[in-house]
This record gives sequence, structure tokens and C-alpha cells, in this order.
Amino acid sequence: MVVIGLISPLATIPQVIKVFKTHTEHAAGQSLITWAVYTVIALLWVAYGIHRRELPLIIGNTIGVIMYGLVAVGILVHAGLTF
Amino acid sequence: MVVIGLISPLATIPQVIKVFKTHTEHAAGQSLITWAVYTVIALLWVAYGIHRRELPLIIGNTIGVIMYGLVAVGILVHAGLTF
Repeated sequence: MVVIGLISPLATIPQVIKVFKTHTEHAAGQSLITWAVYTVIALLWVAYGIHRRELPLIIGNTIGVIMYGLVAVGILVHAGLTF
Repeated sequence: MVVIGLISPLATIPQVIKVFKTHTEHAAGQSLITWAVYTVIALLWVAYGIHRRELPLIIGNTIGVIMYGLVAVGILVHAGLTF
């Protein structure tokens, strides 16, 4: 379950690379709402994981918060406030 | 849990709108790898939900497959094969 919980957060790496490095001019095409909500939901799962003392939940979703949060920040930096 | 499981898939609606309607010219900024992996993972969760007969897993992730799959298709349609 640790491995499964890592796949989606790690699969976000190419998206982070695109929004910060290779395709910054296309940042406006990313939905700030979508990535902000993903970040908040991952944060809630981290809290739930701490509460339930479930390490797989904590690890996967901590990486999730970082990855989804990075995409959200990348949108803000390169496209500003958008929907 | 049904409601929590619906939030991320439903939060993807603005991203689907951007890739198909309002920001098609920025589709290349989306990572095909990221959205394809999200789609496959959601599909695996649907299978797991059916196996475990957990309706919340099935409902949330079925909507997830549709949403994430739509973004992946939108990238393919408007930007072609990309990373």
C-alpha cells in the first residue's frame, strides 16, 4: 500500500517540470482550482493518517501535498490568479 | 467518505473545461504522463472497490476515471503525444 500510495504523487513530477521549466508559457492552461483542491485534500489525508497512525497514508500524501502544491504555486507564479 | 471521495474528481472539472474549451492552446503544458497515470490508478481503485464491494471507492473513482481520462484525451487531441 505504501508503493501504491506513492504512484500518483510521483506521477505528478512531469507536471511540475512542465509548469516550472519546459512549458511555463502554458501555465494558464492549468486549473488553479483543481491543483489547490488536490493539495488541500492531500493535507487532510496527512492529518487523518497522523490521527490513525497509518504511515502509508502519511508518506504518500505528504509527497502529494508537496507535488500538488508545487503545481499550484507554479500556476500562480507563471499565470497569476486563474480559475 | 462518499463525499470526500468525490471532491478530487469533481475538482478536476475546471481542468477539463480548460483543456477542451477555454485554454486549448495551452494543452501542451499539461503532462500526459501525469493524467494517464491518474486515470490508471483510479481504474485500479474501481477494480479494488468492486472486489471489496465498497461503494464509496467505486463511485468516487469511476468519476475519477472519467475526469482524469478526459484531461488525458484533451491533451492528446489538442497537443498530441507529449510527456
